[in-house]
Amino acid sequence: MEKIRVGILGLGTVGCGTVKILQDNAGLLSDRIGASLEIVGVAVRDLSRRRPVALPPGVLTSDAWELIRDPRVQIIVELIGGIEPAREYVLQALDNGKHVVTANKALLSQYWVELVERAERNGVSLMYEGSIAGGVPLIRTIKHSLVANRIHSVTGIINGTCNYILSRMFMEKRPFQEILVEAQEGGFAEADPAMDLDGIDAAQKLSILVNLCFNMGISYMDLPFQGIRDLTLLDLEMAEEFGFRVKLLASAQRKGSTIEAWVHPTLVPVKHPLASVESVLNAVYIEDDNLGPSLLSGQGAGDLATGSAVVADIVSCARDILSGAVERVPVGGSRLGAKGEEPPRLALDTVSEFYVRVSARDQPGVLSTISGILGENGISISSVIQRGRETEAGDGVPIVMILHEAPGSKMTSALARINALEATLGNGFLMRILPGQEIRWQTP
Amino acid sequence: MEKIRVGILGLGTVGCGTVKILQDNAGLLSDRIGASLEIVGVAVRDLSRRRPVALPPGVLTSDAWELIRDPRVQIIVELIGGIEPAREYVLQALDNGKHVVTANKALLSQYWVELVERAERNGVSLMYEGSIAGGVPLIRTIKHSLVANRIHSVTGIINGTCNYILSRMFMEKRPFQEILVEAQEGGFAEADPAMDLDGIDAAQKLSILVNLCFNMGISYMDLPFQGIRDLTLLDLEMAEEFGFRVKLLASAQRKGSTIEAWVHPTLVPVKHPLASVESVLNAVYIEDDNLGPSLLSGQGAGDLATGSAVVADIVSCARDILSGAVERVPVGGSRLGAKGEEPPRLALDTVSEFYVRVSARDQPGVLSTISGILGENGISISSVIQRGRETEAGDGVPIVMILHEAPGSKMTSALARINALEATLGNGFLMRILPGQEIRWQTP
Repeated sequence: MEKIRVGILGLGTVGCGTVKILQDNAGLLSDRIGASLEIVGVAVRDLSRRRPVALPPGVLTSDAWELIRDPRVQIIVELIGGIEPAREYVLQALDNGKHVVTANKALLSQYWVELVERAERNGVSLMYEGSIAGGVPLIRTIKHSLVANRIHSVTGIINGTCNYILSRMFMEKRPFQEILVEAQEGGFAEADPAMDLDGIDAAQKLSILVNLCFNMGISYMDLPFQGIRDLTLLDLEMAEEFGFRVKLLASAQRKGSTIEAWVHPTLVPVKHPLASVESVLNAVYIEDDNLGPSLLSGQGAGDLATGSAVVADIVSCARDILSGAVERVPVGGSRLGAKGEEPPRLALDTVSEFYVRVSARDQPGVLSTISGILGENGISISSVIQRGRETEAGDGVPIVMILHEAPGSKMTSALARINALEATLGNGFLMRILPGQEIRWQTP
Repeated sequence: MEKIRVGILGLGTVGCGTVKILQDNAGLLSDRIGASLEIVGVAVRDLSRRRPVALPPGVLTSDAWELIRDPRVQIIVELIGGIEPAREYVLQALDNGKHVVTANKALLSQYWVELVERAERNGVSLMYEGSIAGGVPLIRTIKHSLVANRIHSVTGIINGTCNYILSRMFMEKRPFQEILVEAQEGGFAEADPAMDLDGIDAAQKLSILVNLCFNMGISYMDLPFQGIRDLTLLDLEMAEEFGFRVKLLASAQRKGSTIEAWVHPTLVPVKHPLASVESVLNAVYIEDDNLGPSLLSGQGAGDLATGSAVVADIVSCARDILSGAVERVPVGGSRLGAKGEEPPRLALDTVSEFYVRVSARDQPGVLSTISGILGENGISISSVIQRGRETEAGDGVPIVMILHEAPGSKMTSALARINALEATLGNGFLMRILPGQEIRWQTP
């Protein structure tokens, strides 16, 4: 049986999952491919480290370049993560005419155009199903199943750590900090959780989705993102009273010739299918011109979930090699510079309804000052809830407001002014409100 | 720009959707393919019929054979439906070396092995994303995204008509017959709804899924199926009391070296993600060795939803042609006769918990007789609800029982004996109960 030769860079969580699947499901894979996948080498930094997978002698190497240069290797699988040396490795592998599979969202979200251009120039594949929501068949669905459709919006829960924390806070009615610590102990959050909690991880993934769905070339740094670090249990409880669940959403939506995209804690109507996606699950809700709404959901991360996405990409490259296919599918969905349809631009500002919670000192006239600032920014109030009085702890009186549609920039600058007031504690918290799309999901 | 030439057979609902997408999204498609798709001809029975799409002069023809024989045509799209002449057309197109795209579940579910074998022999593609749950990217996900995974179970709502009727009965608390008539008036059910209501449509789709997921070669006639025709509003209300929703499910599950597969009205725990799939939506819940549970859901049918699946398949064939790929992906997921893994067999019987509702005459000793029959078949009762007395209308006293796990065959023969009792009205109704898989979907 013909062999397809694979070199793997990195043997962390996803690397081990990938190797395990290639080993455990070898028979099934050869039935489906008509060839066997051979791991020629796995490059690691520390050869002596114990790992949960066993490899034949001579397969482990500390020299990634050896694999990238090896003419026998047909597919390089980059699972190191981070920017350098991953970027250098990937570019050289592409230049050496090898197909590349990666799960590296940081790299893709920062160097999208360079990487796509380099793969196209060399006529090889660059595949990245594992870079977003490992257990959700998202990239392939967008590139292949929705190839005939003009996507209107893509909105999803694509950070499992935040969703896990929000789910547990809500179910157990316990504060953010307590749950975060337990999540870290349980392996559901990193020791340094900044990438997840501050929305950077979700923004990186969103930028890849935007480029893929709308034929664009943005970096995640072009996107506005806000995380969940300042969220309190009160915010979840207030949301519930209003008929919403709180989710960290990543969303991109076509508005004429622009794309409004953001990562933000969001009030999701309880009947919206995203509202009931709990714990570490990921889910993405897509609307396009032909399908109406579709929902894809599943495990977002983990060795085997992401490993199975990586192996699926390896199989796709292997099938190209075996069938003689050359440049079968554009890396980014459309070819770079394709202009049958003018690509949209990123919107400079994005409009939505907002939830804002301000902790105010128990003084007369606070509400009037706050609503004055909102009014000056052209933001009108839909409803206000103020309850109780300030406790002796001095943590202020929470004032919660639901605001009518306003540009995000106006809202942010109004909140900055409110936070600067002597009469507030300066920790005001903002969430977007997802419009009532759930109506389309229900029985007519 | 290079052209890929397509011949379409049939211009009904899906045919018109397909043509509309090819026309409306031509620019977007050529950006994504790097070539344009040209409709060389569309074969219809009645040239004079008015249709919602406009085609250039000379494209409509009444001679399907003309397109199948035309050496310019590279892809034949079969959207006629039914067995003959669709089968003859498809086989000849494959023999003529053309790729074939079809949405014909009846044909695939009855002639799977013949069709797959013929495509493989000719080294061309046979694609069928549109044959199941048009707006759900199901076939492609199983064949490509889950290619590295051993599927344990696939369970879905894949008949939109039944789900629409069940949803409306439940929401509006109105009887089956009333909703059916309205569904027919609204175009949600056929004038002759037998294929949908009796579970045949779902069984056809399930047989395709079974063949694809488990590398088998069954026909839908090998599968046990039961529809929803005898279901009453009472059954939905009782299910709700027990904490379930009623759905017509199609399910296939690996048990050792066998596959248990059936189509059946089923009690689904309210927290299971399939429980909240309403109206005409379809959804499929997949479990495999690497991903845990995944859920795909979206619109099940409709001109554009199914049309977009058909066009996605056309694009895949076009990409094979343009890239020089030959036999890139096996038609049925694995190659016919591939034996790296021994394919499982279809189980002769399938075990589950059951719900049974019997209408009994108001006589002493009925319950004892019924439970006696169950006991003789080795079926034990988990709970019983009997309420009220027989009305003058003579429609009996409903007795509802939840039964512990039992083989389907035992259950069916026990029910036949119960229905034959003088003390019952002979219209006992059986539903399966889905085990509490929802636990895995919730926050740990």
